Amino acid sequence: MAELALVTGAHGFIGRYVSRHLAAAGWDVVGVGHGNWVRDEWLRWGLRDWRTADITLESLVTYAADASAVIHCAGGASVVFSVAHPHEDFRRTVDSTAAVLEFVRLHARGARVVLASSAGVYGEVSSAPIVESASCAPVSPYGAHKKMAEELCRSFSRAGGLSTAVVRLFSVYGPGLRKQLLWDACERLARGENRFFGTGTEVRDWLHVEDAAALLVAALGSAGTDCPVFNGGTGAGTSVHDVLGTLFQALGRTDEPSFSAQARTGDPSTLVADASRAFGLGWRPAHAWRDGIAAFAAWHQAGAR
Amino acid sequence: MAELALVTGAHGFIGRYVSRHLAAAGWDVVGVGHGNWVRDEWLRWGLRDWRTADITLESLVTYAADASAVIHCAGGASVVFSVAHPHEDFRRTVDSTAAVLEFVRLHARGARVVLASSAGVYGEVSSAPIVESASCAPVSPYGAHKKMAEELCRSFSRAGGLSTAVVRLFSVYGPGLRKQLLWDACERLARGENRFFGTGTEVRDWLHVEDAAALLVAALGSAGTDCPVFNGGTGAGTSVHDVLGTLFQALGRTDEPSFSAQARTGDPSTLVADASRAFGLGWRPAHAWRDGIAAFAAWHQAGAR
Repeated sequence: MAELALVTGAHGFIGRYVSRHLAAAGWDVVGVGHGNWVRDEWLRWGLRDWRTADITLESLVTYAADASAVIHCAGGASVVFSVAHPHEDFRRTVDSTAAVLEFVRLHARGARVVLASSAGVYGEVSSAPIVESASCAPVSPYGAHKKMAEELCRSFSRAGGLSTAVVRLFSVYGPGLRKQLLWDACERLARGENRFFGTGTEVRDWLHVEDAAALLVAALGSAGTDCPVFNGGTGAGTSVHDVLGTLFQALGRTDEPSFSAQARTGDPSTLVADASRAFGLGWRPAHAWRDGIAAFAAWHQAGAR
Repeated sequence: MAELALVTGAHGFIGRYVSRHLAAAGWDVVGVGHGNWVRDEWLRWGLRDWRTADITLESLVTYAADASAVIHCAGGASVVFSVAHPHEDFRRTVDSTAAVLEFVRLHARGARVVLASSAGVYGEVSSAPIVESASCAPVSPYGAHKKMAEELCRSFSRAGGLSTAVVRLFSVYGPGLRKQLLWDACERLARGENRFFGTGTEVRDWLHVEDAAALLVAALGSAGTDCPVFNGGTGAGTSVHDVLGTLFQALGRTDEPSFSAQARTGDPSTLVADASRAFGLGWRPAHAWRDGIAAFAAWHQAGAR
């Protein structure tokens, strides 16, 4: 019989792909989190069961007591939201992590836990690529809460013997992401606008969501009481200008993106992963960024279904 | 009319003294937290009102909406408890801090917040005295949760403009503390035992609870969006052997304490504050440790009332 894996936030952008990767790897997958989902759809994403519920000790005990793996994707997912609603972002990210860890401590002792964290924990970054041992000084509530969630993993591992690992995801994108740069650009272009915020020189490490999911699953194998941390990035940086230029081409446009030239406060100019540790797991990104962006454009043009 | 100050955890050892200090300084003081307290007693500690309640956004809005100062003393208070019940310690320390900060953000905008944190945030300490800028690597859930509470203050200050300050209390003692070294020693001696855990060579920075309360109140004046951090210690270290020797004398004993010679895991050998920043507030400890311990012995001998 297949072992049980729990995916929190399985209805979310990354959680869906994680569920599908786990199912493909032979796990029985159950999901808990927010979102209204019809059965046909979650079955299609590889879930055996889906429950709409807050991530609490009680909901986890009810739905996932036999889990031997947990990939914790639930949590706040927007810097802007976290500034406007810091307490709600705290609840989603930090309280949910505490509940997951307490659930494993009390009811699923042997389960391995992987936390989907964020490069936002680093805050102002002065060097690129950035290594996992760099100091963390998050600038947004979103990043601060992700950092606290990481510290909870470390604390429960150290004091309670839990097997945990952390993956700090960089700029994850792909079909299904209905926000952030690529989505906003597609929507804006559809409205006849071709001017964007920022300078276009911001450099990010673009990670296809399929690769992000594969890394989160790969990190399960290294979860331990030392709570290893892995950067979730490709190790290569690409500017917003180049990414949008590729998107323009994929959409059949002949013009170039233009920019407001105003840098956004709190946005580091460069945020690129040193991916050596992730590579040490045997994981490699399988999607080149140009191909991934072309696929995103095709998905959007086909109605974003 | 006097301004309103809220003390969370006012029923606790430190919260009571903080309430009395605030009242003496002219504040109207209300307390919220756990503990059954008769009206006569909380009136005697300087409170105008006391409510037994969890520290939640709802309870704070109900009881303290007009506060212009908050001293947040509620929270976990035992390393041992935090190891056995990490989720409950998390709730008491971290969730309560998030609630206090959200309350101030939404309902008491101008209020200054002081967090009673702990030297436990430092973890393994290799140098003495320790400065506030030292790295924090807590070894217990208690310390990890206090660190998260500090990070919440910083985050709400940075993103939300709240005025906060943090005081990291060292080894606070005094009449009313019914646990830890001095209490355990008095109880043990009363049972005819005179042998103690540890080596006796552990050095701590003993801070009288009256001085701790005065520092927490003094820190209100420096609370700001930069969330300053102050070590709450005297700057001087005294060994457990010397402290217990003084306690023995105060109790009229002629023997000396003896020790098991087993060091407790996770206990740093030396934990002494660099108190320069606290001194920069104009605050000075008023209680010499020998006098404070003699007073503690007298309190215990008089029935610990």
